[in-house]
Amino acid sequence: MKITIPAQKLSDAIATACCAVATKPAVPILRNLLINADEENQKLLLCGFNLSLGIQTRIDATVESGGTLALPAALLRETIQNLGGDLNLEIKDKACTISHSSGKCRIQGTSAEEFPNLPTAEGSQIKISAKKLKAAIAATLFATSKNETKLVLTGVNFIFDNSEWRLAATDGHRLAFASIPSTEENENNTNLAITFPYLNLGELERILEKSPDNGTCEIQVSDNIIQVFVGETKITSRLLEGTYPSYPSLIPTQFTYELYVDKKVLESALRRVQILAEKKDKIVQIVWDVGEETATLYAQAQDVGDAVESISIKSKSQTNENITISFNIDYLSQAIKHITTDEILIRANRCSTPVILCPVGGLLDQLSLVMPVQIRDTAQTSPKAKDKDKNGVDETTGQIESPKGETSQNTAKRRRDKQVKENEPAIPA
Amino acid sequence: MKITIPAQKLSDAIATACCAVATKPAVPILRNLLINADEENQKLLLCGFNLSLGIQTRIDATVESGGTLALPAALLRETIQNLGGDLNLEIKDKACTISHSSGKCRIQGTSAEEFPNLPTAEGSQIKISAKKLKAAIAATLFATSKNETKLVLTGVNFIFDNSEWRLAATDGHRLAFASIPSTEENENNTNLAITFPYLNLGELERILEKSPDNGTCEIQVSDNIIQVFVGETKITSRLLEGTYPSYPSLIPTQFTYELYVDKKVLESALRRVQILAEKKDKIVQIVWDVGEETATLYAQAQDVGDAVESISIKSKSQTNENITISFNIDYLSQAIKHITTDEILIRANRCSTPVILCPVGGLLDQLSLVMPVQIRDTAQTSPKAKDKDKNGVDETTGQIESPKGETSQNTAKRRRDKQVKENEPAIPA
Repeated sequence: MKITIPAQKLSDAIATACCAVATKPAVPILRNLLINADEENQKLLLCGFNLSLGIQTRIDATVESGGTLALPAALLRETIQNLGGDLNLEIKDKACTISHSSGKCRIQGTSAEEFPNLPTAEGSQIKISAKKLKAAIAATLFATSKNETKLVLTGVNFIFDNSEWRLAATDGHRLAFASIPSTEENENNTNLAITFPYLNLGELERILEKSPDNGTCEIQVSDNIIQVFVGETKITSRLLEGTYPSYPSLIPTQFTYELYVDKKVLESALRRVQILAEKKDKIVQIVWDVGEETATLYAQAQDVGDAVESISIKSKSQTNENITISFNIDYLSQAIKHITTDEILIRANRCSTPVILCPVGGLLDQLSLVMPVQIRDTAQTSPKAKDKDKNGVDETTGQIESPKGETSQNTAKRRRDKQVKENEPAIPA
Repeated sequence: MKITIPAQKLSDAIATACCAVATKPAVPILRNLLINADEENQKLLLCGFNLSLGIQTRIDATVESGGTLALPAALLRETIQNLGGDLNLEIKDKACTISHSSGKCRIQGTSAEEFPNLPTAEGSQIKISAKKLKAAIAATLFATSKNETKLVLTGVNFIFDNSEWRLAATDGHRLAFASIPSTEENENNTNLAITFPYLNLGELERILEKSPDNGTCEIQVSDNIIQVFVGETKITSRLLEGTYPSYPSLIPTQFTYELYVDKKVLESALRRVQILAEKKDKIVQIVWDVGEETATLYAQAQDVGDAVESISIKSKSQTNENITISFNIDYLSQAIKHITTDEILIRANRCSTPVILCPVGGLLDQLSLVMPVQIRDTAQTSPKAKDKDKNGVDETTGQIESPKGETSQNTAKRRRDKQVKENEPAIPA
């Protein structure tokens, strides 16, 4: 093999293919990238594979003579990253010599024959907008379970029924859903229901981030293998086996409360109370005052301190009664983070039933379902505490009070005594 | 206590004082920052202390009433970082309530009486330019030993003799030295010889980085305690006990070779060969060709690969004979990194004697001494290999050869067989 290629272009391609290379693979050959110079098409192919995910990418090169070799991925990546200008690569005696303006470097390789073949999928190709696929992955991926014993829940479920794609992810405590209408080009009566492992989908997301917004991906599925073609890159992934739980029935369709909040305002208020919530039980209690159109966030860590924040909201609710809902602050923050519009609609019925967060406008039909934390002794109405200032601080003692109107120490004690087991909200099956 | 203070100013001061707070201190009270509102001077004092290092800083505040409390440093820091605008801080019942535009936060504290007093130094004050002190610390700190059993070598030695400050650090393999002429203001016949622990000196360096370049520091030493005043911040550190080795005799004064190199060019060539050197013994062999004014860098890792780089140099040597010197690549790279001028002067005598690196120009009188790695079977002359191209690649086999003219595999084998113990260069006592 003898080729000439710009260092930057090669470096980018290596970085892409390296996403599928494990640092400590079961088989040593998988520590390598397979490089293959195609003289006929004047292309260099690079391929990484970790048995679950394969990434193959193709770049233009001046190929004087073709050839193939497996080269240590990390060493190759680091070497090329530190080079500039045009590089000459030459393979001789299972070693690749890289010549550049100020020197040369020789890297020992392994015969390409030892590198396993990527599995292939043969079903018909379905087209999808790269931009929308990227957005739908970002809207759902975070809600997958990271616990490998939860099998099918460690992936994002993709359903395609000719009219649209529906993506969903849940870890049992929260659920994220997004749908994309199908493009008219897909008229081939393909029906799919697959579950894409979260780690591999994360790599696909990163590759999509680099692709132009107006691009189109092609998806091909067969025998538990998915292939996604993004520009000159092909991502091959094994799929998760098992039946994905039926989630549509879990999503309420009627709501008593419809509350509109500014995303940035809510995020920054949450970030401030989160510091204290994280010292203890990660719970944030939010009093939605429908009449006054304010939300009061409250977090507390016994013997450490407490924090209270007030923000403005807009309400289009069917009631004027206030509602207090407690959340695991991580689940709530992550749901908000993955909605990209400036305004968020929060829909709820009771303090113990699923709360839905949706974007107001935006590219996608998207929602996040978060189960509240149930605190039995919390009344559903705001304290409207008398003799206390606007932020709920008792002027006599200087101690911030919980929205219930109790002193924070009492609430904390009661909460600790009774509700420890209830801090893990679960989606009712 | 009741004060008003801008969040950003308070956040910066907390970050400074927090540098002296241990994450897991032996005594729980040291996890705190001591805050103290001084009504008379309208200042807020913050103090962190880990028994070895104390940092006290002072900022302007509107103090309605004074008071003091120890507050958990990490929680306070994180809380204030996330706030903006003006804050009201109020202490009541050993808790500090922080009120801001959208809410309040209460942090439980500990009585200030439990916080230990900082030790104080009482000697006469010596003045020094903040900019030069910062540069001298940067020029030496990296060469201290990080091995706590090496006691006095884990610090930077400061000597003051009225005419100048001399700073030196060594870990036994390399030595760094810098001197600063004394300002005329110091005419008090003070003589000092102290060793400043590297961790504490690193924090002083960070504080100096934030101080204006035209500032002056005051240094005060007594009873193994040093106090450095930088603007409104006072750094108090314990000093290392023990006699620092006499280093001036280790630094050669006469040189056969005087080689001038561009810092960036040498750095980038080293970075490229370092990737391969790090796979094995971390050795870079450099052939300085005095006649042709080039340096050829060569690194090799058996069964992995090898790399060669050629760069231009300028020579003002007293000989025309080439010289090959092998270095531990980390020691060489770090010495180069801590010289801030564009051009570096490398001075050497033989392949086995100390090599000196100095800035050409620059703010400081500074040098770095690096001991070469001794490889007994390496000839001191460049191969001037015939039938090989400029970069030392044998055209017949495509294999890069070592500067000795041997094939790289042979050299590597011999090196491995004979010189393993010599890879740790040591400064001769």
